[in-house]
Amino acid sequence: MPKLSEKDKVARRERVLDGARRCFAKYGYEGATVVRLEQEIGMSRGAIFNWFPSKEELFIALAARDNARLLHLFAEEGLEAILDALLRDDPDWLAVYLEFGRRLRTDEELRERWKTIAPDDARERSRGWIEAAQSEGRMRSDVSAQEIGQFLGVILDGIAVQRALGFDAPSPELLHLLTSDAVAGARDRALVSD
Amino acid sequence: MPKLSEKDKVARRERVLDGARRCFAKYGYEGATVVRLEQEIGMSRGAIFNWFPSKEELFIALAARDNARLLHLFAEEGLEAILDALLRDDPDWLAVYLEFGRRLRTDEELRERWKTIAPDDARERSRGWIEAAQSEGRMRSDVSAQEIGQFLGVILDGIAVQRALGFDAPSPELLHLLTSDAVAGARDRALVSD
Repeated sequence: MPKLSEKDKVARRERVLDGARRCFAKYGYEGATVVRLEQEIGMSRGAIFNWFPSKEELFIALAARDNARLLHLFAEEGLEAILDALLRDDPDWLAVYLEFGRRLRTDEELRERWKTIAPDDARERSRGWIEAAQSEGRMRSDVSAQEIGQFLGVILDGIAVQRALGFDAPSPELLHLLTSDAVAGARDRALVSD
Repeated sequence: MPKLSEKDKVARRERVLDGARRCFAKYGYEGATVVRLEQEIGMSRGAIFNWFPSKEELFIALAARDNARLLHLFAEEGLEAILDALLRDDPDWLAVYLEFGRRLRTDEELRERWKTIAPDDARERSRGWIEAAQSEGRMRSDVSAQEIGQFLGVILDGIAVQRALGFDAPSPELLHLLTSDAVAGARDRALVSD
């Protein structure tokens, strides 16, 4: 077998991840059998598990990629962009998170790992974005950047679970407006007609 | 069998619901077998399913009771009370909701029923509470009472899913402060030191 260049390696890994994401969304976590993963990815099990030692590791890599993408989006385009991305994401894929949640629930080690699933640079850029917004008065500074991140996490999880269960989440406009106001600095609060 | 008074009937029904809630929390939705329901409730299957025609109906009745309690709490004591109740609720029980979510996801009829699971009076009192707060300037009036309710629903679902998966939700103080500010009328917004 010829040696793969670094670029080819990255492309091959991405191909495995993309196919696995489609497979998980289509069949659920449990339903994504090795045979179905082979079919959807278009590689043999040997080739797939050469990249990821187990189905669990494959899923964690997908979650880490999602998480990093969302954090980068937030750091580059701000709050509305991350809310919109989640409002547009495939509900079938979001539902896989809930299914995987049973593992997180009962496996403390996995849960600890999950908490640190985003790469450090994505996490730091997000915190940096919040801190910059705080120092410019666009976000409130009576709570820490980490606390603002925690609160946004609750809202994002709430949207994800509503969509995963097949309910319509509130409109993007409503979510933008109220979420912005929750975390806004005094000067950026929307004018309220009361 | 002697005829039960109305009061006895209500007490008997509550006893079935309380035992079933413990059983679901302990074993999960799937794991709550008829034998385990009998043991935890302390009644025979005949007696239990005299009140509720199926395990699904039993669970829906429990969810409706929870939902009504939370809405009443909100209408009587306000936002902080409903947030606190969810932050204190048994994570094992919250996890059963996620497990049941798989049914909601694939069964549109069940999902439509789920949307209307709270009794009308509980829903109306909650909307009334928001409308009163809006007319007194304690809640914003640039969005409708229903929209404020939807947004609070996202936050409550986000808290529930974090706790159900075994993660620590943000502190009550943080949730109170930021959620209040999201829905507050201009005059009630917290002062922000920026």
